[in-house]
Amino acid sequence: MGVSTGSTTVLKVAVLGCGVVGSQVVRLLDEQAGDLAARVGRRVELAGVAVRRIDAARDVDLPDGLLTTDAAALVARDDVDLVVEVIGGIEPARTLILSALEHGKSVVTANKALLAEDGPTLFEAAEKSGRDLYYEASVAGAIPILRPLRESLAGDRVTRVLGIVNGTTNFILDKMDTQGSGFTEALEEAQDLGYAEADPTADVEGFDAAAKAAILASLAFHTRVTAADVHREGISEVSAADIASAREMGCVVKLLAICELRTDETGEEAVAVRVHPAMIPRTHPLASVREAYNAVFVESDAAGQLMFYGPGAGGAPTASAVMGDLVTVARNHVSGTRGVGESAYTDRAVLPMGETRTRYHVAIDVDDRAGVLATVAFAFAEHGVSIQTVRQEGRDDDAQLVVVSHTATDAQLAATVEHLRGMDIVRDVTSVMRVEGVDE
Amino acid sequence: MGVSTGSTTVLKVAVLGCGVVGSQVVRLLDEQAGDLAARVGRRVELAGVAVRRIDAARDVDLPDGLLTTDAAALVARDDVDLVVEVIGGIEPARTLILSALEHGKSVVTANKALLAEDGPTLFEAAEKSGRDLYYEASVAGAIPILRPLRESLAGDRVTRVLGIVNGTTNFILDKMDTQGSGFTEALEEAQDLGYAEADPTADVEGFDAAAKAAILASLAFHTRVTAADVHREGISEVSAADIASAREMGCVVKLLAICELRTDETGEEAVAVRVHPAMIPRTHPLASVREAYNAVFVESDAAGQLMFYGPGAGGAPTASAVMGDLVTVARNHVSGTRGVGESAYTDRAVLPMGETRTRYHVAIDVDDRAGVLATVAFAFAEHGVSIQTVRQEGRDDDAQLVVVSHTATDAQLAATVEHLRGMDIVRDVTSVMRVEGVDE
Repeated sequence: MGVSTGSTTVLKVAVLGCGVVGSQVVRLLDEQAGDLAARVGRRVELAGVAVRRIDAARDVDLPDGLLTTDAAALVARDDVDLVVEVIGGIEPARTLILSALEHGKSVVTANKALLAEDGPTLFEAAEKSGRDLYYEASVAGAIPILRPLRESLAGDRVTRVLGIVNGTTNFILDKMDTQGSGFTEALEEAQDLGYAEADPTADVEGFDAAAKAAILASLAFHTRVTAADVHREGISEVSAADIASAREMGCVVKLLAICELRTDETGEEAVAVRVHPAMIPRTHPLASVREAYNAVFVESDAAGQLMFYGPGAGGAPTASAVMGDLVTVARNHVSGTRGVGESAYTDRAVLPMGETRTRYHVAIDVDDRAGVLATVAFAFAEHGVSIQTVRQEGRDDDAQLVVVSHTATDAQLAATVEHLRGMDIVRDVTSVMRVEGVDE
Repeated sequence: MGVSTGSTTVLKVAVLGCGVVGSQVVRLLDEQAGDLAARVGRRVELAGVAVRRIDAARDVDLPDGLLTTDAAALVARDDVDLVVEVIGGIEPARTLILSALEHGKSVVTANKALLAEDGPTLFEAAEKSGRDLYYEASVAGAIPILRPLRESLAGDRVTRVLGIVNGTTNFILDKMDTQGSGFTEALEEAQDLGYAEADPTADVEGFDAAAKAAILASLAFHTRVTAADVHREGISEVSAADIASAREMGCVVKLLAICELRTDETGEEAVAVRVHPAMIPRTHPLASVREAYNAVFVESDAAGQLMFYGPGAGGAPTASAVMGDLVTVARNHVSGTRGVGESAYTDRAVLPMGETRTRYHVAIDVDDRAGVLATVAFAFAEHGVSIQTVRQEGRDDDAQLVVVSHTATDAQLAATVEHLRGMDIVRDVTSVMRVEGVDE
């Protein structure tokens, strides 16, 4: 198999995919040509764009002869130096990226699903070929978060990452909070405005956020976490009552990707990675992230608390992140070097969800009898879950207890809820939600 | 002059200065030794620490023999590979950094004053020696902002940077806003808590923020801006009445470092760089930056609006930024490469303050006579300053007009204010403040 020799005067870029992101990458390559040449030290030119159908309508005008349906041939072409993959999904993206690396091209990708499912295969291929694989655009769109985690914080010890990394669910939860909408109504508004797809499962059920959580945890903790390691709960069960309860506590509900460094039962450091809706205090910097914006909050030993905020999706913002990576790999190509490879030296275990510790907000419909509060409190105590506050609301058929716990494990809380559900005086446990962003 | 050959098994680091930041760098080098070795690919060891007085009290325990008062000899030592400069100020820092580069050492510095005054001399020395000069810690402490500007946004076009880059002044303005304190009272509180120095001039009068603005503008716009190019106003004239006026408009007062790409009178792109107190809407992401925190808000063509938030000062946070740079230059050293050099290829002019455009909030004590509002409005119109709103407050001796303008140049506004001050019906122009963070 031939290895690219490339040109000594021009760098040639192949773009795979010409949809929402790809068309913006093609546009920026053209519009920023002068600046790119100055920043890279060599002209950067489009070698070709691989698409599924030549005659599809697209947002960008392309010179004749650049479009091709043969992506496999394009990534193997001798005159191509760099490959941008913005097709998404597992195949054919994986095969094309691996082929590009084998042919000596550096690769920039925005493919979170592939990285979260099979990152190690890609990283090994990049290592073996001595080429770069960059993927800033795969998490939180335009927000520079992977490079800061990988490079700026390389001399620090990251202990926690809390991210709002899915714009669709943040838009829905924000509308539920500010307009008092129910989930279905807010989802429909998101669909009307183009923030949610016709089939919203990947966003609403947390699959998209889980892939990003796996990528963030791997980089933050120098280990390997895949999407299958991430505990995942979506927002479709979040009710207007949950949002109102959060508001009463001075909290707001967000879908969070949470990556934590924890100590397991044997005293070893392990990682816990989960995606679920959670209440956070309105004073927390993440609470003010509105509409479809994303933000990633990072805690580390020396830096303390950092937050990175911006648009988490969209063609131009995602293309900005792709272009930043493209300039880096192009400079590396020109100077004959490569960037930092993946660092998974800690090889930490992933903690089972049952051992994950946090606080909980539990709403329980109860019979309005004397002693009910004490009886419920006793059930929490029996499972080792310490109560911070308990509040009784309503009377008679409408009586409800709202319990906020101190930190406990997920297993302890689950056992408590099962216990409560079996009690005569409990009509229903109507809501269980984790509370994050509060000091332990 | 000998060029460092260094060791092939260990990287040796010289630290210049062992104060608040230096002592934390020394601590992290020790505590993170294992992780650093894994991340760099070679052990990283302390070669020596240059201090003014050997017997001074300090926050860190050092092994015998590492302290020296001869910084010049330390940076020239053959076994030293990397130099960290955290002395601050112009001299001897400049001479030591130049000597380190000449002797083939890569340098990490937190020295904003030196970079803002004489950056080009340092960058040229780094270029000539083929070594790295990194300085993330010089702006906004722990917040990764220079690397994102220089690398993540390298394929985008940054058009504006708005930064809260001085924690002392943000603390003071936040107290004035939340507690209704006057400037003097808030400054005293900041001094009591250690957020302000006994002589607070550098912070309060905006010198510190101006140095950071020069560094940010240079990187964002790929040009050279020095502290002398930055229009600077401090916060000592900000009154409780200004804060109250801002509140009435739904705004908050912040000391902002503002770097903008503008078109000058000939249609050429130029940069405008200024530091001054300004009103920003409470809905703006920067408005929620409280206490001594820092944040930098970046606008670019493709990415849109990004914000970077975190602790802007303090020993450990600043040391985190130094350590991130140290890992990068150490990796470059190991792989025999260097990072991206400074890029000043656009060589843009700096726009005079008079040509800078923004909105203004002007409070005017007036005689309570019929027609006064119209007369004042006419004075604005005469200088081409279009009025957005005008509000009359109080009666008789206490009558005041509050004018908020559309965008106008600083020169137009200054002429208007001079005109107003000369008018019979105007008793005083009590406050002029710029309004930022609003779409034009």
